[in-house]
Amino acid sequence: MFANHIHIKPRLACLAGLILAGCAVNPANPESEVATPRPVTETIVSLERAQITSPNGRISLELTSANGQPAYAVTLDGAEIVAPSRLGLRFAEGADLDEGLIITAVTEASADETWEQPWGERRLVRDEHNELLIALRDADGGTHGYDLRVRAFDSGVGFRYEVPDTGPRAVVDEITRFNVDGDATAWWTPAGEFNRLEYTYKTTPVSEVPRANTPLTLRLEDGTHLAIHEAALVNYAGMWIDQRRGGELEADLAPRHDGVKARLDGAFVTPWRVIQIADDAAGLANGTDIYLNLNEPNKLGDVSYFTPGKYVGIWWGMHIGTYTWGSGPEHGATTENTKDYIDFAAENGFSGVLVEGWNVGWDGDWFNNGDLFRFGEPYPDFDIEELGRYAAERGVELIGHHETSGNITNYENQMEDAYALYEANGIHTVKTGYVADGSDLKLVDEDGFARYTWHDSQERVEHDIRVLEAAHRHQIAINAHEPARDTGLRRTYPNAVSREGARGMEFNAWGTPPNTVEHQAILPFTRMLAGPFDFTPGIFDLMPNGEEDQNRVPSTLAKQLALYVTIYSPIQMAADLPENYAAHPDAFQFIRDVPTDWEESITLQGEVGDFVVTARQERGGQDWYLGAVTDEYERKVDLDLDFLTPGLTYRAEMYLDGPGADWDTNPYSIRIESQEVTSEDSLGFWMAAGGGAAIRFAAAAE
Amino acid sequence: MFANHIHIKPRLACLAGLILAGCAVNPANPESEVATPRPVTETIVSLERAQITSPNGRISLELTSANGQPAYAVTLDGAEIVAPSRLGLRFAEGADLDEGLIITAVTEASADETWEQPWGERRLVRDEHNELLIALRDADGGTHGYDLRVRAFDSGVGFRYEVPDTGPRAVVDEITRFNVDGDATAWWTPAGEFNRLEYTYKTTPVSEVPRANTPLTLRLEDGTHLAIHEAALVNYAGMWIDQRRGGELEADLAPRHDGVKARLDGAFVTPWRVIQIADDAAGLANGTDIYLNLNEPNKLGDVSYFTPGKYVGIWWGMHIGTYTWGSGPEHGATTENTKDYIDFAAENGFSGVLVEGWNVGWDGDWFNNGDLFRFGEPYPDFDIEELGRYAAERGVELIGHHETSGNITNYENQMEDAYALYEANGIHTVKTGYVADGSDLKLVDEDGFARYTWHDSQERVEHDIRVLEAAHRHQIAINAHEPARDTGLRRTYPNAVSREGARGMEFNAWGTPPNTVEHQAILPFTRMLAGPFDFTPGIFDLMPNGEEDQNRVPSTLAKQLALYVTIYSPIQMAADLPENYAAHPDAFQFIRDVPTDWEESITLQGEVGDFVVTARQERGGQDWYLGAVTDEYERKVDLDLDFLTPGLTYRAEMYLDGPGADWDTNPYSIRIESQEVTSEDSLGFWMAAGGGAAIRFAAAAE
Repeated sequence: MFANHIHIKPRLACLAGLILAGCAVNPANPESEVATPRPVTETIVSLERAQITSPNGRISLELTSANGQPAYAVTLDGAEIVAPSRLGLRFAEGADLDEGLIITAVTEASADETWEQPWGERRLVRDEHNELLIALRDADGGTHGYDLRVRAFDSGVGFRYEVPDTGPRAVVDEITRFNVDGDATAWWTPAGEFNRLEYTYKTTPVSEVPRANTPLTLRLEDGTHLAIHEAALVNYAGMWIDQRRGGELEADLAPRHDGVKARLDGAFVTPWRVIQIADDAAGLANGTDIYLNLNEPNKLGDVSYFTPGKYVGIWWGMHIGTYTWGSGPEHGATTENTKDYIDFAAENGFSGVLVEGWNVGWDGDWFNNGDLFRFGEPYPDFDIEELGRYAAERGVELIGHHETSGNITNYENQMEDAYALYEANGIHTVKTGYVADGSDLKLVDEDGFARYTWHDSQERVEHDIRVLEAAHRHQIAINAHEPARDTGLRRTYPNAVSREGARGMEFNAWGTPPNTVEHQAILPFTRMLAGPFDFTPGIFDLMPNGEEDQNRVPSTLAKQLALYVTIYSPIQMAADLPENYAAHPDAFQFIRDVPTDWEESITLQGEVGDFVVTARQERGGQDWYLGAVTDEYERKVDLDLDFLTPGLTYRAEMYLDGPGADWDTNPYSIRIESQEVTSEDSLGFWMAAGGGAAIRFAAAAE
Repeated sequence: MFANHIHIKPRLACLAGLILAGCAVNPANPESEVATPRPVTETIVSLERAQITSPNGRISLELTSANGQPAYAVTLDGAEIVAPSRLGLRFAEGADLDEGLIITAVTEASADETWEQPWGERRLVRDEHNELLIALRDADGGTHGYDLRVRAFDSGVGFRYEVPDTGPRAVVDEITRFNVDGDATAWWTPAGEFNRLEYTYKTTPVSEVPRANTPLTLRLEDGTHLAIHEAALVNYAGMWIDQRRGGELEADLAPRHDGVKARLDGAFVTPWRVIQIADDAAGLANGTDIYLNLNEPNKLGDVSYFTPGKYVGIWWGMHIGTYTWGSGPEHGATTENTKDYIDFAAENGFSGVLVEGWNVGWDGDWFNNGDLFRFGEPYPDFDIEELGRYAAERGVELIGHHETSGNITNYENQMEDAYALYEANGIHTVKTGYVADGSDLKLVDEDGFARYTWHDSQERVEHDIRVLEAAHRHQIAINAHEPARDTGLRRTYPNAVSREGARGMEFNAWGTPPNTVEHQAILPFTRMLAGPFDFTPGIFDLMPNGEEDQNRVPSTLAKQLALYVTIYSPIQMAADLPENYAAHPDAFQFIRDVPTDWEESITLQGEVGDFVVTARQERGGQDWYLGAVTDEYERKVDLDLDFLTPGLTYRAEMYLDGPGADWDTNPYSIRIESQEVTSEDSLGFWMAAGGGAAIRFAAAAE
């Protein structure tokens, strides 16, 4: 359960830069529960520009409509961050909304409220922003036009199109541009190339980005960091970022099966287009509340059926060839195996046991045919009722699994019953999958014909909402793999607890190539800006295919521990086989200790692709946890511990790379030691090439 | 005028590989004017496969439909060139045509005919092929399905979908795949990145091609060369080649403004998907008749109003800043300037004078607004009637120019009158332009709303046909810049005389970067496979912006001459300013001599991106011309002259790179010399780095 703590602080000053007959303000406007938009002018007069500034005054967005073409620009401390960039929507039919528009009215508002997450990387989220609602209308006096709602935060700006009802509309192009310096460095994965999001990151000048997924992270030459992403992707297409000739970045929407980008009926709002702005990489990672704040509040209500936690499961064994998903002598999802995992979970404090390959469908060509899957039909050697009972007795829950192979309709036809089956057996979290390697996502239309669409298309986005709502009816939380990108929707649908949406650990088992050594030093500043990631860390046998195989986990043992802190997810897997944990009981202790729900999270240091140092305070406790990972270079970190609670003494239980550690030549060398520290101390440690550090700061009783 | 010479040679053998109850042939089938398809079987029975072989027996295509998924594979001399690759079309509504289909009937045919081009790289074109028409129908007994028409030539294979009438259809995806070895080397430009085709070529493994334009040229590891392209692009979307995860190439159609790839009503056929196959690079360049043969015969009739020839013009001066397109003191298109060019043309045997910037529209922001152009309104300082008269008196024609800035509707609204104006002033060739850098191609729909589409979209393709038909009504030939790609349509519409569609000379004036040194050694094996290219060669001042500028023509003087032979176009510009030709009268003589219409053309030697040696025989004469260009490496070429007519003696007038020539350090060193040769001789010459050679073989009177 959570409560909103709302503090509204209306801004009463005139808007800087607005060319108005007068400065209309309402001095009588009291503090209220909701930020009431106040009309500054409503007479039809073309305003030259509108400007909004962040609460701290550093970030400004200016909107103009010279030649009838609305465009915005963004500055930081007065320096241009985004040069004038066009805005607009184009449709298959009817008047486009990109040209011939003037600013006819501007309404301002502001808010400063704090709300509580049911679970998350921090308990309390502050939403402090200024807002403009800018009316853009036909310069020739016609009725068409739209409102641009802009919010400026200290961590960046967001804006969205709000389009009045003109009947059914087919969006065919969104020309929102992001005119940034082409020499900026970008970290990106290619978009629209493959129907998933699983790529190694590239690091290039922006000018060499052809088409990228968001969050698209940029470092300007002066060190300022930006990320371009979106918030509240609902009933619309996901946004890719395309590069136009001449270097301007532009929104490029994932198409529906019929080529249209989004079909809308009546008034609609687009997702928020967000530009995060920070002085450094750590600032970017610390500024992600902007996405949550731009999403609507919780629509579902009580989601206390979901409890953050750690899980183990019958999964990695399939990736390294020990088990099969399908039936047969190596079938992983047997009652017996699952009981062993339940026992292991109970003994080690894990709350969940994931079991993949439990249901009928895996024996055929499932990569190419999601029709095969039966979500209510366990394999005969998997006794779901017995296992539900066995788990409950031991204080453990099964975690369900629904691989759809991207067949949306086949899944929707069965999901209500499938969730009911899980609900009846005490299962409250389901990992879904949309591998769809054989074709694109598949839908069946009302005439019974197959249609194919993208993982980020409007059709997928709408499916996801139906899934979350159906799951909620059965007290089930969703962890989607091969998902649409995260846009902070977990605020509105807090049973959307985690997802994939980037290359996870599995690529180290069979990826061609496997993940890069720097991968986890990029993730906190790219993929992780969007939200929780079910990366499945904690592999202790770093060469699961043998020493000769090109695929391995490019990491030291200590780095595997650090990932539980550097990568946020309310459910974290301990992905390796129990026997591999048994081989390193001392290191395993950190995984047993580390929580997955937090009072606060702080990225202390970092550079994109080089390293990151993250500290998180346990929710409901005083302990802090620190994770640090480095790329292929060894690195020394020096930290002030001023994030710890003043006056408390902590025992720092440190899991550090040991003597001679190196991901390539000596990955298992680990040094585990303790020392007492307070918030006034500083701490230094060394990370090996491909290494990391994990530290528990256990508060002593006061 | 031209005539068809048709020789039909029906194949009477059973089709290899067909699993049939019997081998139904019609021994009574006589030679006839038209290849009559003969039904081999029409009973509804699923055939396992159908196979077709080229006339010389080397190339085979096999079609199967295992699991109901039609797929084809191609072999050369029994070795797999294209591994099994899926076929199919998907639609916004109704039954897709990609799955659940069986082979129900196969019809065979063959032809061997020779037809004459009104103008071209060779006068007579031989069309020798075998054909299969393969019926693919619903495996469940429904009526939906399509016919695949396949033709096998000695130079490659072509196939197209022939879809029966099921009412209006919206094609949203064509899944024609080209499953080639990912290690093959590809020469390509990116597709779908910018609304033009003007890129430097990249040379990479196929596996690194994200999305490419066609012709997409490949060299397999055994040296076999392939090109993937299309023929007869009419009433359909242009084809890009996209790479799927896993490395399969797949057709990706340029979308219409509404996101649909192609809208069709009633029965339709797609363009031919063509895979050219050759033992070496030269074979690829010599095999391009396949595109013409897969287009329909001349629909227009007499196009004798168009005469191949060379032209000069008021054009390069704008690119190097001497003149402006718009009005003002530096306006290039004045009556006086044009008369000077007409005089120069008449004195030097040029048949045409192009004048750009002659009509109203260039003074505003034309890059972003094609609405500005008035095609019937000359600038006041351009007296079109006087110039038409002046030119005619001197045996010269003006060449018209219509820059649309991509505004299709604005052009269509004016084109009939604009052609009439040109017709009245003796103008029979018009260069069109679709720069559209400010936005995509612009259409105005029936409701008066602007729509935006691609340069290769169905909407553009349909526009081009309307242009060619309107132009033909006024005895005008079209040379389109920023065109849709060429697909051999000049056979059907022989007033489509040339086009751009790749980086031309102009990029050396202002391109960032300028063209590569190897560019012209790539073109003959890539862009030139598609058809004529108005490259505008013949720049004699190789550093037009001064020696300090990064932009220059990366070429020796001799290479500039060679381009008149290595690059085919029935109209060839001598692009430089008259004063620069006056500075090199000896070299200029080759440009004066070289024809632009040919009896025969032969690529003698070459490697993609390294060099090419091309010989062409003048149409209506005995003279041969040879052009050779090399990349950034110097090269020695040794040739047998057995392409010359036996028994004749030729004076070889050779324009060769001179002592110490080098594009970078000594580009003007040229050696001009003559020697007598016959077809029994061989000839060797040296090309400098970035150099070339041009040779006229002037036949002595017998």
